[in-house]
Amino acid sequence: MPLIECIPNFSEGRRQPVIDAIVAAIASAPVDVLDASSDTDHNRSVVTFVGEPEAVAEAAYRGIQTAAEHIDLTEHTGVHPRVGAADVVPFVPLRESSLAECAALARTLGQRVGESLGLPVFLYEEAALVPGRTDLAHIRRGGYAGLRERMQQPEWQPDFGPGQLGKAGAVVIGARRLLIAFNAYLDTDDEQVARAIAYKIRASGEGLPLLKAIGVIVGGVAQVSMNLIDFRQTSLHAAMSALHAAAAEHGVHVTRTELIGLIPQAALLDYALASLQLPRTTREQVLETRLGAANGDYRPLVFE
Amino acid sequence: MPLIECIPNFSEGRRQPVIDAIVAAIASAPVDVLDASSDTDHNRSVVTFVGEPEAVAEAAYRGIQTAAEHIDLTEHTGVHPRVGAADVVPFVPLRESSLAECAALARTLGQRVGESLGLPVFLYEEAALVPGRTDLAHIRRGGYAGLRERMQQPEWQPDFGPGQLGKAGAVVIGARRLLIAFNAYLDTDDEQVARAIAYKIRASGEGLPLLKAIGVIVGGVAQVSMNLIDFRQTSLHAAMSALHAAAAEHGVHVTRTELIGLIPQAALLDYALASLQLPRTTREQVLETRLGAANGDYRPLVFE
Repeated sequence: MPLIECIPNFSEGRRQPVIDAIVAAIASAPVDVLDASSDTDHNRSVVTFVGEPEAVAEAAYRGIQTAAEHIDLTEHTGVHPRVGAADVVPFVPLRESSLAECAALARTLGQRVGESLGLPVFLYEEAALVPGRTDLAHIRRGGYAGLRERMQQPEWQPDFGPGQLGKAGAVVIGARRLLIAFNAYLDTDDEQVARAIAYKIRASGEGLPLLKAIGVIVGGVAQVSMNLIDFRQTSLHAAMSALHAAAAEHGVHVTRTELIGLIPQAALLDYALASLQLPRTTREQVLETRLGAANGDYRPLVFE
Repeated sequence: MPLIECIPNFSEGRRQPVIDAIVAAIASAPVDVLDASSDTDHNRSVVTFVGEPEAVAEAAYRGIQTAAEHIDLTEHTGVHPRVGAADVVPFVPLRESSLAECAALARTLGQRVGESLGLPVFLYEEAALVPGRTDLAHIRRGGYAGLRERMQQPEWQPDFGPGQLGKAGAVVIGARRLLIAFNAYLDTDDEQVARAIAYKIRASGEGLPLLKAIGVIVGGVAQVSMNLIDFRQTSLHAAMSALHAAAAEHGVHVTRTELIGLIPQAALLDYALASLQLPRTTREQVLETRLGAANGDYRPLVFE
């Protein structure tokens, strides 16, 4: 049975009744909601849910519809760049599913959202139909106002739906691999240091492939905010090693880190093996993996 | 349904037909054999199996019986200290079971082994009935010859079975927590350095509680061989941090490590969180844990 994850981002992180209505709309489809977290600074909520293909597409549709009814982008304030009430809707293959199948799902949903909800839809990453739209940041540059202006150009017509933005903005729908969102705080309040470290480690700077990073100030403290696009290619261990090295060059240190959203067990286990200098084959020595293979019970053992 | 692990050590690591016979005897009971590994230098095999209480006790009994039939301790050579054909038989609670229940199981098995197989049985750790027999190393000091001599003293009568050793030696049976066996290789061939580092980090030296460590030479390379007795109390991260610090004091480094036997997932995940400087609550952000809680499917996701 294929299992697909959907992690829509909504441009509402403050009005709890609106957030609740969006989550309830999603949960009214036969999916499992794994996580819902809101950020008041960013005025943004992220919902994580999983299910079979048709169910996740239906849940996403209901979430988009509810968000579009309640969120007015022309009145929106918040730190995070955004172009729509339902801002980004990525599908991620988890089990017995491929990126291509998730891309097909994204396109089908995009067409329905464009036609039935009357919202402009841009397809991104694996689902992109127009070259140059693979990159989410590119579509979202300048936020709602920036996209509204660009849409006056013929090459910025949406993939589905009307050619101009209404109050609910656009929806960016796509398919991608599971990503890991991870922030590291530094013992400095110098934003330039965080930005220089981010540049040093990220793919678009001098750093590692498939690693995104920006330097920002959060609560008065410098933070390097990272996205690992494919942790099998550029691992958590590689990213952290690069981060520690770059921080050392600037005479600063990582004081603590935080994980945004969910992380697959394999990313943490791989990190542990690499950091412990254990061979990768040690993965096969995990007790629960052996237990599961022997009797089908993969539940984590609890030792308190 | 209670799940108990048993990890018997047998004093045979070279004659494959004997090893196969022991494993087959164990597997003839309704248990799941998770691992069987043999070491020719140590002339020793370790079998890991799990099952319900009565089944693991029965499987252990059959393994002990087969080992006693085939292994003659008076002709045994090998690096590892040993007192019996079936040398040590520990029971470990995994699910819905306690150390006390495992200790009771060990005592019942010990009585049966003493009476039906005519082997001297010493109960150790949580199962010990005689004070001073909790420590396995204490019982095994001097190996077969040492124990044979000590058994002439009244205070060294076994808990069950005859008062003197035959060719199959004694069986040390007990209950303990799940332990992690872990070796680190250093970039030196100086055994004294490995021994000094081991002393520095272990509980019986200047180091961490519930950590055992010895320094040895393996294949011409210095190795610190460690046992974490309770990884919730003294974690893998604490042990490795102590090891790295002690190695640095001696101007040496860890070149690689190896894990002996199986390790619970939680030990590696806890290590990853500590090393990444993530809060412990990040455990709740593991995707498979959320998936399992939502739909009962805890199988690890595979990303290749």
